[in-house]
Amino acid sequence: MASLLHQIQHQGVTINATLPLDSGQVLPSVTIAWQSYGALNADRSNAVLVCHALTGDQYVASDHPGTGKPGWWARMVGPGKPIDTDRFHVICANVLGSCMGTSGPATPDAATGAPLGMAFPVITITDMVRAQAMLLDHLGIARLHAVVGGSMGGMQTLAWAATYPERLASALVIASAARHSAQNIAFHEVGRQAIMADPDWQDGQYYGSARAPTKGLAVARMAAHITYLSEEGLTEKFGRRLQARDIKSFGFDADFQVESYLRHQGLAFTDRFDANAYLYITRAMDYFDLADPHDGRLAAAFAGARDVRFTLVSFDTDWLYPTSESRRVVQALQSVGAAASFVELSAPFGHDSFLLDVPALDRLVAGALGAGF
Amino acid sequence: MASLLHQIQHQGVTINATLPLDSGQVLPSVTIAWQSYGALNADRSNAVLVCHALTGDQYVASDHPGTGKPGWWARMVGPGKPIDTDRFHVICANVLGSCMGTSGPATPDAATGAPLGMAFPVITITDMVRAQAMLLDHLGIARLHAVVGGSMGGMQTLAWAATYPERLASALVIASAARHSAQNIAFHEVGRQAIMADPDWQDGQYYGSARAPTKGLAVARMAAHITYLSEEGLTEKFGRRLQARDIKSFGFDADFQVESYLRHQGLAFTDRFDANAYLYITRAMDYFDLADPHDGRLAAAFAGARDVRFTLVSFDTDWLYPTSESRRVVQALQSVGAAASFVELSAPFGHDSFLLDVPALDRLVAGALGAGF
Repeated sequence: MASLLHQIQHQGVTINATLPLDSGQVLPSVTIAWQSYGALNADRSNAVLVCHALTGDQYVASDHPGTGKPGWWARMVGPGKPIDTDRFHVICANVLGSCMGTSGPATPDAATGAPLGMAFPVITITDMVRAQAMLLDHLGIARLHAVVGGSMGGMQTLAWAATYPERLASALVIASAARHSAQNIAFHEVGRQAIMADPDWQDGQYYGSARAPTKGLAVARMAAHITYLSEEGLTEKFGRRLQARDIKSFGFDADFQVESYLRHQGLAFTDRFDANAYLYITRAMDYFDLADPHDGRLAAAFAGARDVRFTLVSFDTDWLYPTSESRRVVQALQSVGAAASFVELSAPFGHDSFLLDVPALDRLVAGALGAGF
Repeated sequence: MASLLHQIQHQGVTINATLPLDSGQVLPSVTIAWQSYGALNADRSNAVLVCHALTGDQYVASDHPGTGKPGWWARMVGPGKPIDTDRFHVICANVLGSCMGTSGPATPDAATGAPLGMAFPVITITDMVRAQAMLLDHLGIARLHAVVGGSMGGMQTLAWAATYPERLASALVIASAARHSAQNIAFHEVGRQAIMADPDWQDGQYYGSARAPTKGLAVARMAAHITYLSEEGLTEKFGRRLQARDIKSFGFDADFQVESYLRHQGLAFTDRFDANAYLYITRAMDYFDLADPHDGRLAAAFAGARDVRFTLVSFDTDWLYPTSESRRVVQALQSVGAAASFVELSAPFGHDSFLLDVPALDRLVAGALGAGF
């Protein structure tokens, strides 16, 4: 339940400096929760920032304190792994607007002590990146060996290169895009409407009450989850197979395995995520379009990033952020003279491929980080 | 509102004969609401049955009595149109389980007079077809010149050919499939959960109350609506364009045009459709797999249909019922020696192409109905 979620203690820091936001609003201070793995070397040159996706968190390679499950990228980050913590100091921070310790809609109002709810300002992907830069300043890390991220993590990685090009040597962008498409926005809007239609949402002020919009949040997660998988993957994994009893109930129970899987995904999500955070982060993603401040010219966003080495990876079955969006970024990078390599990998899992067992991705990530180090 | 919906009077007939259902349950009698267009000829050989889609109705070529809008296929059915009512007697019946006058969850219980709600039995696509056959018996029409349908209408058309092959000369199946895929089921399950999560659903017994699950139904419609459109179509129609004020609100209003479009689609739908009917009809579609009673061999379903002339049409941008599903049907038909022609049309509108301005479809439909008449 959301109430338990907010009782978890996280490692974090409150930075008493203002954070000016794209909206024009200002956060008077910002709390950032983060985890790190591997030692920072003497000249502070081996830091790798991993940026997490929409529903991810800072527990990239350590057990989630709420669910007890392994870190969401434990297969990628660790000693001897592609992002090798024997070599790199890996930092992962919970994004601004989220619910795992960083400032977000559940943060108490400084004056009243009550959670801000919808009084928290709307934030953007670049605002998330600004908060991460404040954390790095606090940690005394001037420059990153690499910024790495999949999905929304890839958006942050691109925003890093656009906003602080001098602070990173390389950028690894996986299964991502430089803008949210109309279809991307549409799916997010369905999720937001599902949450806001739930009477337990209470205009976002549910924190003090015994109720939280778990039903709406579960529906939002179900709809989103379909977009993370490929049609072929769903067919292979579930097809039209019925549940164990193997007969149609002629009712509205979860007869098909895919139904019970989705219901489980929806329900389990509400144990580890806050509905308002889902609203804020989906909004940030929908607003994301790196070309927007440059009259639609994406290349202009990367004008200062020609010394950053870029690696982009897409998956052939990813229909959420398809290969064409990665190609568009690569073309923009090449047009400003940045070194950008691009690979489309074949994997059956759709968008979720970046989180799953794709050995070719492991090799690519290891190669992208190892180069020049 | 659903309450107004149920006050509309429809032309219909109550047939006092039992309708045995695939579930094993039996409807003691069945009411069928229908519309017809064009005159039945003397030898009763010019009848064309049009089967409607999930949220369609019998008002194929006449104004909807609730919304006042033109019939949903008025561009296709009428004097001089591809389904020419100067030549054909066109019949369209509201499907079993729906909410426009045919027996469904809003039908009163014979004993108590209260709406059945979830006590209405779960029905299948073939049950819908059985009800249509009872209507044709009542009308004295032994054999149809053609059965025509798009989307779920195409599923009924295929079920007609499988169940009553001697009663139709030709079948025209547009943007459809012989089974629901895991992804199809998944999207429907999201919609059902959105409805059933709405406290105003009240376990389906909302008819007598002042409340109806309009919020849940709107969310269900929004999610489904995305699947009816192509990604390219959404981009072309809306892209990332903002509403009239052309600035980001940094809030949760419908900033993007695609958001306000979807919200409108969701809300408008609740004025003309009943949430329980949505549950029952989506369930019928999810259960649909013509190969299921034949150990997965689709060809066996069409063993008796080798004298039916089939025309199948798919659209290249339809990701809900993609071309591959139509090809699968054509292969099954050809393997039993049935005459089956197949065309994939290019149209930008995704699944909804069958309802929209695609001149090549008009020519195909006219040709398929004219042949041999």
